[in-house]
Amino acid sequence: MSTQPVPGRLARALLAPRRIALIGASADEGRLTARPQRYLRRHGFAGDLFPVNPRAATVLGEGAYPSLADIPGEIDFAYVLLGTDGVEAQVAACAARGIPVACVLADGFAEAGPEGVARQARVLAAARAGGVRLLGPNSMGVVNLHRRIALTTNAALEAESLPAGRVALVSQSGSMMGALLSRGAARGLGFSHLVGTGNEADLTAGEIAGLLLDEPDVDVVVLFLEAIRAPGELAAAARKAHALGKPIVALKLGRSPFGAELATSHTGALAGSDAAADAFFRAHGILRVTMLEALLELPPLIAHRRAPAASHRAVGVMTTTGGGGALAIDALGVLGIEARAPDAAASAVLEAAKLPHHGRLLDMTLAGTRPDRVMAGLAGLRAAADTDLALAVVGSSAQFRPHDAVAGIVEGARAPGKPVAAFLAPQAEASLRLLAEAGIAAFRTPEGAADAIRAFCDWRAPRVIAAEAPPAIALPDAPDEADARALFAALGLASDAVVMRDAPPPGLRYPVAAKILSPDIAHKTEVGGVVLHIADEAALREAAAAMRARVAAAAPAARITGILVQPMAKGLAEAILGFRRDPEVGPVVLLGAGGVMSELHRDVALRLAPVDMEEARAMIAEVRAMKPLAGWRNLPRGDLDALARAVVAVSRLAGVEAVREAEANPLIVGREGEGVTLADAWVVRA
Amino acid sequence: MSTQPVPGRLARALLAPRRIALIGASADEGRLTARPQRYLRRHGFAGDLFPVNPRAATVLGEGAYPSLADIPGEIDFAYVLLGTDGVEAQVAACAARGIPVACVLADGFAEAGPEGVARQARVLAAARAGGVRLLGPNSMGVVNLHRRIALTTNAALEAESLPAGRVALVSQSGSMMGALLSRGAARGLGFSHLVGTGNEADLTAGEIAGLLLDEPDVDVVVLFLEAIRAPGELAAAARKAHALGKPIVALKLGRSPFGAELATSHTGALAGSDAAADAFFRAHGILRVTMLEALLELPPLIAHRRAPAASHRAVGVMTTTGGGGALAIDALGVLGIEARAPDAAASAVLEAAKLPHHGRLLDMTLAGTRPDRVMAGLAGLRAAADTDLALAVVGSSAQFRPHDAVAGIVEGARAPGKPVAAFLAPQAEASLRLLAEAGIAAFRTPEGAADAIRAFCDWRAPRVIAAEAPPAIALPDAPDEADARALFAALGLASDAVVMRDAPPPGLRYPVAAKILSPDIAHKTEVGGVVLHIADEAALREAAAAMRARVAAAAPAARITGILVQPMAKGLAEAILGFRRDPEVGPVVLLGAGGVMSELHRDVALRLAPVDMEEARAMIAEVRAMKPLAGWRNLPRGDLDALARAVVAVSRLAGVEAVREAEANPLIVGREGEGVTLADAWVVRA
Repeated sequence: MSTQPVPGRLARALLAPRRIALIGASADEGRLTARPQRYLRRHGFAGDLFPVNPRAATVLGEGAYPSLADIPGEIDFAYVLLGTDGVEAQVAACAARGIPVACVLADGFAEAGPEGVARQARVLAAARAGGVRLLGPNSMGVVNLHRRIALTTNAALEAESLPAGRVALVSQSGSMMGALLSRGAARGLGFSHLVGTGNEADLTAGEIAGLLLDEPDVDVVVLFLEAIRAPGELAAAARKAHALGKPIVALKLGRSPFGAELATSHTGALAGSDAAADAFFRAHGILRVTMLEALLELPPLIAHRRAPAASHRAVGVMTTTGGGGALAIDALGVLGIEARAPDAAASAVLEAAKLPHHGRLLDMTLAGTRPDRVMAGLAGLRAAADTDLALAVVGSSAQFRPHDAVAGIVEGARAPGKPVAAFLAPQAEASLRLLAEAGIAAFRTPEGAADAIRAFCDWRAPRVIAAEAPPAIALPDAPDEADARALFAALGLASDAVVMRDAPPPGLRYPVAAKILSPDIAHKTEVGGVVLHIADEAALREAAAAMRARVAAAAPAARITGILVQPMAKGLAEAILGFRRDPEVGPVVLLGAGGVMSELHRDVALRLAPVDMEEARAMIAEVRAMKPLAGWRNLPRGDLDALARAVVAVSRLAGVEAVREAEANPLIVGREGEGVTLADAWVVRA
Repeated sequence: MSTQPVPGRLARALLAPRRIALIGASADEGRLTARPQRYLRRHGFAGDLFPVNPRAATVLGEGAYPSLADIPGEIDFAYVLLGTDGVEAQVAACAARGIPVACVLADGFAEAGPEGVARQARVLAAARAGGVRLLGPNSMGVVNLHRRIALTTNAALEAESLPAGRVALVSQSGSMMGALLSRGAARGLGFSHLVGTGNEADLTAGEIAGLLLDEPDVDVVVLFLEAIRAPGELAAAARKAHALGKPIVALKLGRSPFGAELATSHTGALAGSDAAADAFFRAHGILRVTMLEALLELPPLIAHRRAPAASHRAVGVMTTTGGGGALAIDALGVLGIEARAPDAAASAVLEAAKLPHHGRLLDMTLAGTRPDRVMAGLAGLRAAADTDLALAVVGSSAQFRPHDAVAGIVEGARAPGKPVAAFLAPQAEASLRLLAEAGIAAFRTPEGAADAIRAFCDWRAPRVIAAEAPPAIALPDAPDEADARALFAALGLASDAVVMRDAPPPGLRYPVAAKILSPDIAHKTEVGGVVLHIADEAALREAAAAMRARVAAAAPAARITGILVQPMAKGLAEAILGFRRDPEVGPVVLLGAGGVMSELHRDVALRLAPVDMEEARAMIAEVRAMKPLAGWRNLPRGDLDALARAVVAVSRLAGVEAVREAEANPLIVGREGEGVTLADAWVVRA
């Protein structure tokens, strides 16, 4: 692995273009379309600029070209600044010249109804015809601060100077790109690159993240997402991130239904469920934050680190402000992260340093802010074997004596060991800046600190599930319950139901239940198609005949494919085990308790499919209503191993492309050793 | 109601002292104990200062006094800056001189174990002996910025100048007092007063809030609380706040168990449950925020307003940044606040102004930031009949053209109508300051905006429950189940159980259940003290005799007071209905569904007791597991009126001081019209 990879043609053209065409550059410097030229020059772009404007000989003092075709020599990057209607022709012109990257500013594409969708498809086709990679539409362009490339319409570049850092941002929202840049700059948190991806007709956040990871100026990639457009590309980037030790952090809209609705209407993407997005980020080792500032504040905590194999979900906290320390501990606790009292190892270090301590908060009020004392406190907290990081909370000294306040933290964090973070209780710009310069994660608010630390504790390496070949299954166009059961059985979830055609099959264990089989009947009970507690063979014969007659009367058009007969199952609890393809992230498996209560409590665990046994067990542990089955309060234990195997089996539907959705509901969980029973099942073809 | 009340002696001495003694003032200006004198002078205190220091003739250039007794004339306020051991004598000296207020800086009192508790009691007794009101111990003092009184040890007063505002802060944490002051000052959000109450041995946050509400410089009182020490005083202040139209906002620690543990160990208070604290704030019309910055950002939204009678839990949102607007809407949605598309009234105003709109977000990107357009947009959103406020989200213009960006908001908000708030997506100090100056709530983060707006939507006038005289009930020292049932019956929750002494009572509706009655037996089943499904009188006779024999064998020392007999109840669901006295806020009533699942899902509604029928119905609606009883999915309806009456009845235990805790568990809810049945009950004496 080279630390200075030779960038490919796409990366060079997209992230470090040296010859740039600005199509539709305005000669009126007050206009939006004049900004890229102004900003490139203001921030010291050293390459060649080619404004394209048929109505002006010069644009902002530089020679202009009537058309793209008139520009001599190679062009790396063309930014199309024209209105919606002018885009297609210019992208075609880029294709004619073989320009590697065209970026489109205009909106009015996939986010603007069916006409816009068609328009976007035409633009994409025009690009692809000439091998042009498309950024946007609705893109605010690309900024590379190390190379002084401010190729953007974003007003945040009005700033006289901007700090260059080692965090790259990819944002589907152009305006948030500027908002994050300005917020970071105010605290000394600089970016290396900023890329606005807009509608992502072609280049997606995932693919661009993958390119950015190869850049030597990049330690961390952060994403502002409205939708996950190409999960495969983002997953590939996440694996690369892990391999290179350059983490990816994401903030994604859509945590509430209103936000989800808006994010999709804004960008023309389909919304998946937020739980599925969450599962996607976790499975791929992408740290997800939920607060805007945490997106800026988290990177220093994870730069040059890899996801740990496990975490304690616990931190050590020291403070020079009792109230501030309590505030941080409370915010962490709300998210399930425990501030833990020093363990024996930590206590030994603290005692050797004569630092009195008791309880969850190492109070340094008396020890003060002398750097050697702070360093000793940090060394103590970092010595603990049962925490994930050390958090230093700083009071008024951070405001008035910034160097004193942070010196001990900066020095203390130099020693190798678990990460160090800081929360500053008062207004303390200078201290925040000093900590940023030293590469230490510093938080302005206790809630931001808690959000980022929670993401850190949840961080795991990308999951690797050995891909098993999916079973060869011929699924009819209109599968009935027997087909669904056969499918589940092929995957490893057998059922004890048999199909009765004319006479009762031999060897049945009575009492049994009988259900009509038909691809045309969704609700069997409503047409009299279910009979329970059938005592013996004679009764089954009778029940089957009566059922056929009832169903024929109630649903004369329905095809009857047989009668499904199954021994009556007894168990401790009912579960719902489902599979579906999320519109954003793809195949997911979900497990919930059965019955209305589970639905009322939204008590469901969801993962990307497929899962392995370990993951399946984690899902079971997550469903609150399954707790009694694990021996809670001495209740009888359920066969959770069999349940986990069923989860794994159903999750393997991910590989069966013919299946869009499937469900085992209810799946009856027996006592330990008694297995699970599939009481009903259905499947929907893709 | 006078707008300029004549302040009482306590308010004058505490909030506007003119002659101040600083007991233990240090002559070394680097020391903590030199700060009050330095800060008072730095910020222009015009009154008389009396440093008390037996080892120096002058302190920081001012004449010092060897003892308090040597100071001539009246003293309004004495700040005791000595260490823990020196406090008691000095407070006694204050008492001897009849000084109205003594403030104690030192810690080592109630928060420091039993010795500290005793020490605090002695100091308090010394104060009370001379009519001295005590602030602290562990108090950072009092700041009154309008009168230039910086009577504090808090380092935030190192600032050269501090803006005076119309928000008063009372903080149990001294360091957070400074943190909030500095954070507000950086944005032009000034305070009128800041009071550090520390351990609150005498003066509590509630009493001081009450005094502050009378001050003409105060519009809003904000509280930073670690514990609620005197709920009655805080409730009285909240009622006064409502009467005067000067709202109270609180941030209280203890939302997580770790935070709760810490808050109490830090201040020596007892922790109640956070749900009880939440119920307290809601019942008394105190707005509770959960984020640090929301405590600063919320006041302008509510100044000069009173709690609405109802809310839509909905807002109208306009934006010049799509991503920023979506971020705000998502954050609001996570807290259950809906961003709503313009209704007919709003649409009419927007259409008249030629502002295109569709969906939840009024996108002003094209209309731009011209003040008249922004005003028109705001006027449209404020015209909606189904929202609680209008939120303007501002993009990059807030950073580079602050006057343009906020002019329309400031002008638009002048028109009477529902409140206007702003969230600024980029770094935008100047815009935040302009909005602060105009008295418009402006938020730095989408999450802070959502937290504050959620608090605003939850805000209601203090609840008034007509106090009914509690029933006269003679509760034995060791009440058994029959006593508990009698108590519930006296309050209005009758039960159909009767006590059988020797022979079965006449007129029983069989089948019945029989239970042993004994004040000494907590778990009746374990000693064979419960028999169910008894078919007739003969069987009851037999069961009773057998039960007496079993219990006598299993628990020979237990007093048997009879046998409780009750018709077997059938119902739709089981509920738990409980009463207890929270250590912080006092009597609360709680309702949950019965069974282990309810406990697993923490599915409980809690209110301050007593409650009325409306509140009881709201509690039922809050318990998710009760939803099926309200006709969800066509399930049979339960008798929720009877359940609400039961809640009201049990909540009346608030007035029965002999009762510490009581529970009806299970309470069986019958079908509509069939009432509720008390299946088991217990009570614990105070």
